[in-house]
Amino acid sequence: MSDVIVIKVGGSAGINYDLVCDDIAALVKEGQKLILVHGGSHETNVISEKLGKPPRILTSPQGYTSRYTDVETLDIFAMVYAGKMNTRIVERLQKRGVNAVGLSGIDGRLLEGPRKASVRAVVDGRQMLVRDDYTGKVEKVNAGLLNLLLDNGYVPIVTPPASSTEGEAINVDGDRAAAMIASAIGAKQLIILSNVPGLLRTFPDESTLIPHIRYAGLEQALSFAEGRMKKKVLGASEAIAAGVKQVVFGDARLASCVRNAMAGKGTVIEG
Amino acid sequence: MSDVIVIKVGGSAGINYDLVCDDIAALVKEGQKLILVHGGSHETNVISEKLGKPPRILTSPQGYTSRYTDVETLDIFAMVYAGKMNTRIVERLQKRGVNAVGLSGIDGRLLEGPRKASVRAVVDGRQMLVRDDYTGKVEKVNAGLLNLLLDNGYVPIVTPPASSTEGEAINVDGDRAAAMIASAIGAKQLIILSNVPGLLRTFPDESTLIPHIRYAGLEQALSFAEGRMKKKVLGASEAIAAGVKQVVFGDARLASCVRNAMAGKGTVIEG
Repeated sequence: MSDVIVIKVGGSAGINYDLVCDDIAALVKEGQKLILVHGGSHETNVISEKLGKPPRILTSPQGYTSRYTDVETLDIFAMVYAGKMNTRIVERLQKRGVNAVGLSGIDGRLLEGPRKASVRAVVDGRQMLVRDDYTGKVEKVNAGLLNLLLDNGYVPIVTPPASSTEGEAINVDGDRAAAMIASAIGAKQLIILSNVPGLLRTFPDESTLIPHIRYAGLEQALSFAEGRMKKKVLGASEAIAAGVKQVVFGDARLASCVRNAMAGKGTVIEG
Repeated sequence: MSDVIVIKVGGSAGINYDLVCDDIAALVKEGQKLILVHGGSHETNVISEKLGKPPRILTSPQGYTSRYTDVETLDIFAMVYAGKMNTRIVERLQKRGVNAVGLSGIDGRLLEGPRKASVRAVVDGRQMLVRDDYTGKVEKVNAGLLNLLLDNGYVPIVTPPASSTEGEAINVDGDRAAAMIASAIGAKQLIILSNVPGLLRTFPDESTLIPHIRYAGLEQALSFAEGRMKKKVLGASEAIAAGVKQVVFGDARLASCVRNAMAGKGTVIEG
């Protein structure tokens, strides 16, 4: 196990990237090695609307949601995630003295997995197959590239898209990508920050925060999880199954959000 | 001097990135080490228009043109250059078996220089000072990061924006950035590809191609150069002054464009 921690910060509205970067800069100065994985869903929706290509969300028969990603949507996705969001996060960190390097999952095939031949979705109560979707699931992480950067004093800032097995850019879930990264580099902790304090028994009542879950209880936890939290629970489950000792869901809206989560504030998930 | 070559390919309309990537993939397979620097000006104009923020071009008293880049324009610039263009070029190369890694100039402060406090521009025949411009000039290259990637089998794909001395993302000229990279890593050749066959004595008459220029003749060459070609000549001049042995202006619209330029097809500039 390495001393590296992996931090995932979502792309939902309300997340304060300045606070996240303040905390990361302080940790890096103390010698903490880390990898930041980020999203960009809210901003992608905003830019998609402005470009006259409103987002379409697919819902799987199991209730998981994902963005319908045709070629044009993937262009917008790459523009926002790998362009605007990644550049501005690297900028925030560089301004704070952190030597950040931004990478998307296609760079050096950092995040690789098969593109789904088709996606099953429920539309108006009926199941249909979507075939022109550039979506997949990360199965392989180029840990060598991450360690090369970490060993040379850089802080990797990672974002989707990923690479398909054939080298195509594909949309992948950021939480589950972060889980794969944490497992591949043997991270001691995976911290998943979003705009809620953790997993809530009764969403959105923040007083119903669940402070601790054992791996065996994750399946039950899935039944509490709403919307995007479902994939975070799935990512946590995959990370623990792949050897990560601890996953913490923390609140990205607060100062010291990373440090708080490292100390167990939020929802702690352990094997 | 290293065996690495630096290739700059412009972002103007008419450039065939598939042909450029075909040629690069063949060269990499033969063991040629290289760095690709790319632009994205045409696509940035298209997306800017779509987002309701039409591009504004500033012209300096000396006749050099540059994009007026306020905060909002820099977001669009980063989206197109570092997002869409860079991701899609890396994708083309990954599909062709090249382990490309995309980097903007703010990643690891790869391209660094001071942000201009103000830009002098001629508007309606009168000089004015533009103060909210995020523009600068590359003065320092993180050759260590490029060599780290090259030595480990990766092909760096580099794009503006760059980093200001304070860590802000800034718009910089891609041709002159490529010249600084070529000099910093001791490249044997800098190849600058665009949508013309080279420097033309009478633009746009392609039969007036100038096949060879000595460094001493570059000042005169500047008087032939039209529009964006002016900065390419300036970049070539800076590269030769900084120790690069040969700069070639080649035609990105043709098959084998890199190989042709390496063999001296186009306009060859030497010390």
